[in-house]
Amino acid sequence: MKLAELAVRFGCELRGDPDIDVIAVAPLASAGAGAISFLANPRYRSQLLQTRAAAVIVDAAGAEDCPVPALVTQHPHACFARVAALLHPEPVAAPGCHPSAVVAADAVVDPSAHIGPQCVIGAGARIGERAVIGPACIIEPGAELGADVQLVARVTVCRGVSLGARCVVQPGAVLGADGFGYAPEHGRWVKVPQLGSVRIGADVEIGANTTIDRGAMGDTVIGEGVKLDNQIQIGHNVVIGAHTAMAACVGVSGSTKIGQRCQIGGAVGIVGHLTICDDVVVTGFTMVSSSIATPGVYSSGLPASGAAEWRRIVGRLRRIDAMANRLRAVERRLGGPGTTDDDL
Amino acid sequence: MKLAELAVRFGCELRGDPDIDVIAVAPLASAGAGAISFLANPRYRSQLLQTRAAAVIVDAAGAEDCPVPALVTQHPHACFARVAALLHPEPVAAPGCHPSAVVAADAVVDPSAHIGPQCVIGAGARIGERAVIGPACIIEPGAELGADVQLVARVTVCRGVSLGARCVVQPGAVLGADGFGYAPEHGRWVKVPQLGSVRIGADVEIGANTTIDRGAMGDTVIGEGVKLDNQIQIGHNVVIGAHTAMAACVGVSGSTKIGQRCQIGGAVGIVGHLTICDDVVVTGFTMVSSSIATPGVYSSGLPASGAAEWRRIVGRLRRIDAMANRLRAVERRLGGPGTTDDDL
Amino acid sequence: MKLAELAVRFGCELRGDPDIDVIAVAPLASAGAGAISFLANPRYRSQLLQTRAAAVIVDAAGAEDCPVPALVTQHPHACFARVAALLHPEPVAAPGCHPSAVVAADAVVDPSAHIGPQCVIGAGARIGERAVIGPACIIEPGAELGADVQLVARVTVCRGVSLGARCVVQPGAVLGADGFGYAPEHGRWVKVPQLGSVRIGADVEIGANTTIDRGAMGDTVIGEGVKLDNQIQIGHNVVIGAHTAMAACVGVSGSTKIGQRCQIGGAVGIVGHLTICDDVVVTGFTMVSSSIATPGVYSSGLPASGAAEWRRIVGRLRRIDAMANRLRAVERRLGGPGTTDDDL
Repeated sequence: MKLAELAVRFGCELRGDPDIDVIAVAPLASAGAGAISFLANPRYRSQLLQTRAAAVIVDAAGAEDCPVPALVTQHPHACFARVAALLHPEPVAAPGCHPSAVVAADAVVDPSAHIGPQCVIGAGARIGERAVIGPACIIEPGAELGADVQLVARVTVCRGVSLGARCVVQPGAVLGADGFGYAPEHGRWVKVPQLGSVRIGADVEIGANTTIDRGAMGDTVIGEGVKLDNQIQIGHNVVIGAHTAMAACVGVSGSTKIGQRCQIGGAVGIVGHLTICDDVVVTGFTMVSSSIATPGVYSSGLPASGAAEWRRIVGRLRRIDAMANRLRAVERRLGGPGTTDDDL
Repeated sequence: MKLAELAVRFGCELRGDPDIDVIAVAPLASAGAGAISFLANPRYRSQLLQTRAAAVIVDAAGAEDCPVPALVTQHPHACFARVAALLHPEPVAAPGCHPSAVVAADAVVDPSAHIGPQCVIGAGARIGERAVIGPACIIEPGAELGADVQLVARVTVCRGVSLGARCVVQPGAVLGADGFGYAPEHGRWVKVPQLGSVRIGADVEIGANTTIDRGAMGDTVIGEGVKLDNQIQIGHNVVIGAHTAMAACVGVSGSTKIGQRCQIGGAVGIVGHLTICDDVVVTGFTMVSSSIATPGVYSSGLPASGAAEWRRIVGRLRRIDAMANRLRAVERRLGGPGTTDDDL
Repeated sequence: MKLAELAVRFGCELRGDPDIDVIAVAPLASAGAGAISFLANPRYRSQLLQTRAAAVIVDAAGAEDCPVPALVTQHPHACFARVAALLHPEPVAAPGCHPSAVVAADAVVDPSAHIGPQCVIGAGARIGERAVIGPACIIEPGAELGADVQLVARVTVCRGVSLGARCVVQPGAVLGADGFGYAPEHGRWVKVPQLGSVRIGADVEIGANTTIDRGAMGDTVIGEGVKLDNQIQIGHNVVIGAHTAMAACVGVSGSTKIGQRCQIGGAVGIVGHLTICDDVVVTGFTMVSSSIATPGVYSSGLPASGAAEWRRIVGRLRRIDAMANRLRAVERRLGGPGTTDDDL
């Protein structure tokens, strides 16, 4: 593809030879002839200066430094993503049901959809136009998948769960398993039927082995454009606002509401029944145990130290109460300031 | 169903019109005609006062405030769970093996059991009366499933693993994979064969994508009535006492023994080779690194702060040793008290 | 098998009767006639003194105390592992493809390989000699599995992923799902195509429900002999050096490089774009948020306390900044030492 065609298609300003051919994407450092790369993070500027890419996608600042032809845009990474998708298209899945798939007589599968080998499509399930259901997926009765949904492989969609258009789900994800609901009685647990479902908006992407539980009463709701990485656990009746992104291994307990455009780092845990407002960023390994009403960045992760030093720190921390009391005693001996326990 | 019938069936005291019809359960706030709700947590009392439910399940205290007919019981949540199960029965699975299932000639499948599409039932496996094996489950050779076991879908039961009656297992769970056992030798790892199995008691429930490893020598044992949420990892030779419940994302390392009626919060990590006594509660995000011999509540999770404040706290914590030393120096200058390092 | 045969086969020194028969392995404490056990950890010495095993595998020090015949070797645990594998061989899987498997016409399956029921083998995939592909595995187009690879059951190997000889993968693992790559644009996320793959060296073992993402550009690489426990998450373009071992529930974010022979404890989180040198040990529940250039042991996990004590500690920690300031004020009133904020 000519560089000029890419510039037109993606609305970029072109600097340099419009007739250059690009056939693939590659990282700045290793790109060679025919490869197009991008610069989104200024700390890779030195790689830009030495790149041998055929062309680079940059913003206006990067364009100043670019030694090769450039596509200039405000959002180089997003533009690069689109160029990459164009130059490296996914293999096309043929319409129709593989003969090894088990499709219920009253399931409604659009003729343009692809149903892979070993799939199970339950009674009353609906599969939208051009949907691609990879091998060994299970769509339980009454589930609804919108147009252009892509289940890569081995996805479990439990009964009645709905996915909006263009959702992409990676292998091993389980959408709509029972929530964890038990009532105590005489030292035992009585299962509370989980009668709600899961509603997933358009353009949601869900990672490998991620689990989203169905609601107890009422539904678990994932807003449009949400991106969930691998091995995330979403409890029953959680609500996640549009365009929120979560890194891997996050756990969200039941009935918590998370706002729009939040960014949740890896391995974060969020307690149940909280409300997190829009535009909150939580850094990795943080425990969120109370609601957050103000946009901003929140943390409680502790960075690694050498083990001996860490043991000393933990020992001191366990005695921090005594330390505070002794500091107050010292202050009193010095005649003030009078302090209350709450100040320290 | 008449309210009077529910009262008789579940042993509740009836207050109000016995002829009211209830056809579904619903939350207090949204319940309307025909719906029955419950109050278990006093903080929802204001919802009770305004409810338009046909009836509410309450305890004696709640009954005083209930503006509509009530079923009065000591355990409203457990009673509600049973009413919900009665009013919203699970779809019944027909007995017999789906033709797409692969069932070994010498597997023993009770004629009343249901084997779903795409299942694999290995040699010598035994499936009990009325068991429901959902789509795409794998039951490896020699595994034994008790009466009324329910595997929702895509559960893997490895060779020789046994499940007691009425166990319920959600999709993606793996019961009896090899434990993580390797012996070091010359900078490499030699695999230690995992020769034990997994024994799971009656009435155990296991969440989506939870993994329970088989024992190295001897078995991993899950006591009756244990409830495990999603994405829990149980290492080899762990023993979990009856009626213990664990929230999602917990990890328990090998050979640890956990007592009965414990409650383990989300994302807790429990080190290997420990003994946790009965009736221990561990709050979410805690690391348990030594045995616990006294019932009670244990914690080590750190709640989130604003990121800038948190960075300051972490910086101080890293210098807490210096702080303690300087406090001691101040005390010495003030003439005492003489303290040893251990006091601080 | 005679004890003498084991001694010869595994290069051990034999002490005691060479004609003793051993037919099984067992723990020191419960071993009886015909059973061979081992002592690798000196804290089980008291069990050695009372064992009724037919024989015990020990090192030279252990041999002094051993009351029964012994095989003496430098690495008793590794030797035991080999003896266990010999005495308890895995069931042999017959060569050939199960009729319920769906195998693409142009897949290259070695005639000595076993393809289990309900498998899907995609176009152009290659399965090596004596490989054992258990039930319901998915091998997507272009994937390559070396000789003697063993996929226990329900493993997903995505397109183009390669596994070296003798790899063992437990159920539910997903190798080569898309990495988590999205570019922000106008408050939405644009998916960045994940064009790399996953390359896994020889003798790697991968636990149940572990996920390893494919690279964005370039590959994710797992070195030979690496051992990964269950429910581990490896992000795109991570590189793990040979013979590194990770316990369960670890998460490694994208583009991080981990050295050889590292040992990563359970539930550790490692931030993206870091470099961890060879021979690093990270204890459980640690957050690694910067690169590590020196071999050694690193930690940041906090051990559990009683909940009331822990709340007091957390309260103090949140006010540690004030405590430091007041300590400095005390020092100033005492006329020194002059300190800067950085010292405290």
